[in-house]
Amino acid sequence: MLEFEIVKNEKHSKARLGRLKLARGVLDTPVFMPVGTTGCVKTLYHETVRNIGYQLILANTYHLHLQPGEEVLDSFGGIHNFSSWDRNILTDSGGFQVFSLSNLRKIKDEGVTFHSHIDGSIHKFTPESVVRTQGIIGSNIAMCLDVCSDPKVTRKDAVRHMEVTHDWASRSLAELGKLRNDGGKAPDNLFGIIQGAFCEDLRKQSAEYISSLPFDGIAIGGLSVGESHEDFIRYLSYTVNYVDNSRPLYVMGIGSPLYMLKAVENGIDMFDCVQPTRVARHGLLYTKDGVMNITKAKYRNDTHPISDGCSCTLCRNYSRGYLRHLFKAGETFAGTLASEHNLTFFYDFMRNVRESIEQDRFLEFEREFLDNFRTSPL
Amino acid sequence: MLEFEIVKNEKHSKARLGRLKLARGVLDTPVFMPVGTTGCVKTLYHETVRNIGYQLILANTYHLHLQPGEEVLDSFGGIHNFSSWDRNILTDSGGFQVFSLSNLRKIKDEGVTFHSHIDGSIHKFTPESVVRTQGIIGSNIAMCLDVCSDPKVTRKDAVRHMEVTHDWASRSLAELGKLRNDGGKAPDNLFGIIQGAFCEDLRKQSAEYISSLPFDGIAIGGLSVGESHEDFIRYLSYTVNYVDNSRPLYVMGIGSPLYMLKAVENGIDMFDCVQPTRVARHGLLYTKDGVMNITKAKYRNDTHPISDGCSCTLCRNYSRGYLRHLFKAGETFAGTLASEHNLTFFYDFMRNVRESIEQDRFLEFEREFLDNFRTSPL
Repeated sequence: MLEFEIVKNEKHSKARLGRLKLARGVLDTPVFMPVGTTGCVKTLYHETVRNIGYQLILANTYHLHLQPGEEVLDSFGGIHNFSSWDRNILTDSGGFQVFSLSNLRKIKDEGVTFHSHIDGSIHKFTPESVVRTQGIIGSNIAMCLDVCSDPKVTRKDAVRHMEVTHDWASRSLAELGKLRNDGGKAPDNLFGIIQGAFCEDLRKQSAEYISSLPFDGIAIGGLSVGESHEDFIRYLSYTVNYVDNSRPLYVMGIGSPLYMLKAVENGIDMFDCVQPTRVARHGLLYTKDGVMNITKAKYRNDTHPISDGCSCTLCRNYSRGYLRHLFKAGETFAGTLASEHNLTFFYDFMRNVRESIEQDRFLEFEREFLDNFRTSPL
Repeated sequence: MLEFEIVKNEKHSKARLGRLKLARGVLDTPVFMPVGTTGCVKTLYHETVRNIGYQLILANTYHLHLQPGEEVLDSFGGIHNFSSWDRNILTDSGGFQVFSLSNLRKIKDEGVTFHSHIDGSIHKFTPESVVRTQGIIGSNIAMCLDVCSDPKVTRKDAVRHMEVTHDWASRSLAELGKLRNDGGKAPDNLFGIIQGAFCEDLRKQSAEYISSLPFDGIAIGGLSVGESHEDFIRYLSYTVNYVDNSRPLYVMGIGSPLYMLKAVENGIDMFDCVQPTRVARHGLLYTKDGVMNITKAKYRNDTHPISDGCSCTLCRNYSRGYLRHLFKAGETFAGTLASEHNLTFFYDFMRNVRESIEQDRFLEFEREFLDNFRTSPL
């Protein structure tokens, strides 16, 4: 079982501080995880990611299965050896990518068949195969295969998706046990995933069922899939009422300050998102005042750094005007500088969140931050 | 006048060691200069370039004129402030880019009119404007505007190109003098450029004429423009006979080990080329055994570094198999790692060249290197 200690519960909300002990380092929660699809956060040296302070990144089982594939990963002895990232790696199960990237998704009881988004070839994931693959990857935290529903799903399909997710959850645990008994390659930890779309009764049922199984942690899936901001908050805060919160709680795929704050407020400990690095490559920079589009003409002659007091390479050495120039000139290095900045912003942001919990002033921090951070909910 | 000291002449060739004192650091020659078109070597942090050992990079007047333009550069107080590269910068004059990138090149006595390769807009360079622009850039070594000839040029055009180049050379010096007298922004140093296409008498005439003018250094232009390898060596070794070699000698746009060795053998002190960084972004890695195409299937499971003993981040931390994977997955970071490697290879290569000159065994080094380095002349 995963070592997870709840260090403090905040007085005025469900927010909490935790400590998560993983094989490659101890983490303070709430924690944000950058996405490094293939064991590498896009455009950045590992050293840069580590120096910011990140101890845990997320890699994608779906992508790693397609490229380089299990055979190569196995021959290298897993992703840490393969990618040379020496800290922790959480792998998602591929359930979400099958939902979002593939133009085919055929769900049967046995597993899911899908098209590769790279070459259209046909692949199949089963809950068992996905646990085995994450074992080969050498994942420090693996996720169960689940079925993610569209926000516009019918109730009938939502029920079916939840039931399949539950069946796969118990089969995932069985496969993990089998691997461990047989001395096979098993991931260090396995998290279950709650589904249930946007139906309160299903959410409750799923939260209770997943909590009843001996997972190392629990993820709330099927959120941030295109629903309204109000629905995200409503179904998140509803669902957490029925979750065993002695274990680490994880909301997958969220990466806007607003969503992260709402998640922390509801006792969530972990998040991941491609957002800060993806938008960085398009010239969008996070600051305490909102998201800055550096490609705008008004920054042409601007000699200031992006953010005063930010410790990233960009803010220490480069002006807004030069970063704008690099984007206009199509230099991919612009994306490197911007990615380092946004990940530094997110790291500092989470540190401030933790500090405010420590001081029992999380709600005040949240209000102040959101008042300042004027932007569409990026 | 530029401080340039010839430290040693090799016993068995024209190869020599020199020391070049520039405003932002002293350089040992022969030296290779990476290209950083807009003040930034593509995909790399300045720190990475400096840590390899580079003290001088080349930026392009043509590109900087088009983007961000003189007004922005001036408002930042030049390229060093703008880009935050704190070592030396040599700027080419744009003559070569007008020749190679623009689909219009209208040469008149006054100057050259050309189309921007970005948006097709019409621009004009004169020898005077180009010196002024390089002054605004704050170039540590500026180059004269010249007219580069196609290898298949008629003799009549070759004569005309040379004559215009000569006229522009003296006008460039006059403009520099005027800027200095008037307290305007002037580049630190100005190099003249020899033309004369592939005609021995013109090459001799141009070498003597450019040598007769008080330039800080002399470049041999119009080579490596598509001529055969034999012609490159023939016209280079012919031209250097008529050059004042007490000044630093520069061959522009060469960056293959073979060409660089032949240039060193003929007493050349400086080279630049986009080659090592451009090919890096396509998965081509320099090693002492030749150029390795890392995207080939045979590297799929290869756990070795690119080169044993190489000090770059790639060779210290990553395997061939992982680099191949990054290229196959379309990660631009693959180009970052490969660029750092190739620039490290070129830096180490030039250090070995200098060491062999020091030991009077340059020709032996050249033979051994080329015997080992089996490849098409990349």
